[in-house]
Amino acid sequence: MDNITEIRFAGSGGQGLILVGIILAEAAAIYENKNAVQTQNYGPEARGGSSKSEVVISNGPIAYPKATSLDYMVALTQESFSKYANDLKDTGTIITDKELVTDFSKGKGKLYVLDLEKSAREELGKLLGLNVIALGALVEISGVVSKDSIEKALMKRVPKGFEDYNKKALEIGFRLGSEAKKN
Amino acid sequence: MDNITEIRFAGSGGQGLILVGIILAEAAAIYENKNAVQTQNYGPEARGGSSKSEVVISNGPIAYPKATSLDYMVALTQESFSKYANDLKDTGTIITDKELVTDFSKGKGKLYVLDLEKSAREELGKLLGLNVIALGALVEISGVVSKDSIEKALMKRVPKGFEDYNKKALEIGFRLGSEAKKN
Repeated sequence: MDNITEIRFAGSGGQGLILVGIILAEAAAIYENKNAVQTQNYGPEARGGSSKSEVVISNGPIAYPKATSLDYMVALTQESFSKYANDLKDTGTIITDKELVTDFSKGKGKLYVLDLEKSAREELGKLLGLNVIALGALVEISGVVSKDSIEKALMKRVPKGFEDYNKKALEIGFRLGSEAKKN
Repeated sequence: MDNITEIRFAGSGGQGLILVGIILAEAAAIYENKNAVQTQNYGPEARGGSSKSEVVISNGPIAYPKATSLDYMVALTQESFSKYANDLKDTGTIITDKELVTDFSKGKGKLYVLDLEKSAREELGKLLGLNVIALGALVEISGVVSKDSIEKALMKRVPKGFEDYNKKALEIGFRLGSEAKKN
């Protein structure tokens, strides 16, 4: 049977969630011989500034590209956390941020509350790499693609001159994910 | 009944087709109160360097986000033209390039063969804006969103310092589309 993984990055416009969705899909398709579909859904909430980026990864063909029963969700705003947690499978995993989300009452599945934003601020000096830190944490926790594949895909999409910055952000994400798995 | 428009940008990786798909979807959703879904499909062909970016735009909810019966296709390589022309509705429209595509035997529907690449080279001085020229031509020919909406959405996605360059590329596309419609 085909092994299908459904992932959603949810937050606000400007957090760079579309880009990390594209990078994850390219990591799976170009470097791991899988099929991948990456989708942005713009409904009325897009006009309110919400952003939703989905990736479906499979060994076989993908008949329905919309993520309807999530294995993983990365939620980077309170609104997206509370609104979308219910789209998760019972065995699913949510990765979220300790500062951006404070009310976890709607949570479901396995919950990782990480210092994504704090690490961006303290270790990168700005919040620009928050999306890449979150991507690194997702890859470390899920194992949906290898670290090597995601780094290659990231380097292909990063503007010239920002390679080291983004590699550092990705590694912060790996480390936060790894520490969280131990607890 | 809902008015659904299905559009595919097809060509090679590096032509910036994902970006123009995102810009078109954001123009429809953020500036014209429509619903839009933008999708990248990565199959085995992605490993060969092909790129496919789809946008579905509707007044109502979008049940199935994959473009299966295209109203419009922008094809920027011979391979994508020949491979995907058959996904077009009988009443559909293909927009393609006079230099990048030379064999139109698989063509279907209404065909516009434009000087996209030539205009990029001669009027912009490089091929960097080819995707935005093609986007402008599509908007002019299809009317799927207004010129004003697409310009606003483009400006939101363009790196600082490249606003004028991209505005010029968009206007070249409008002009090529407008000239083609007269013939």
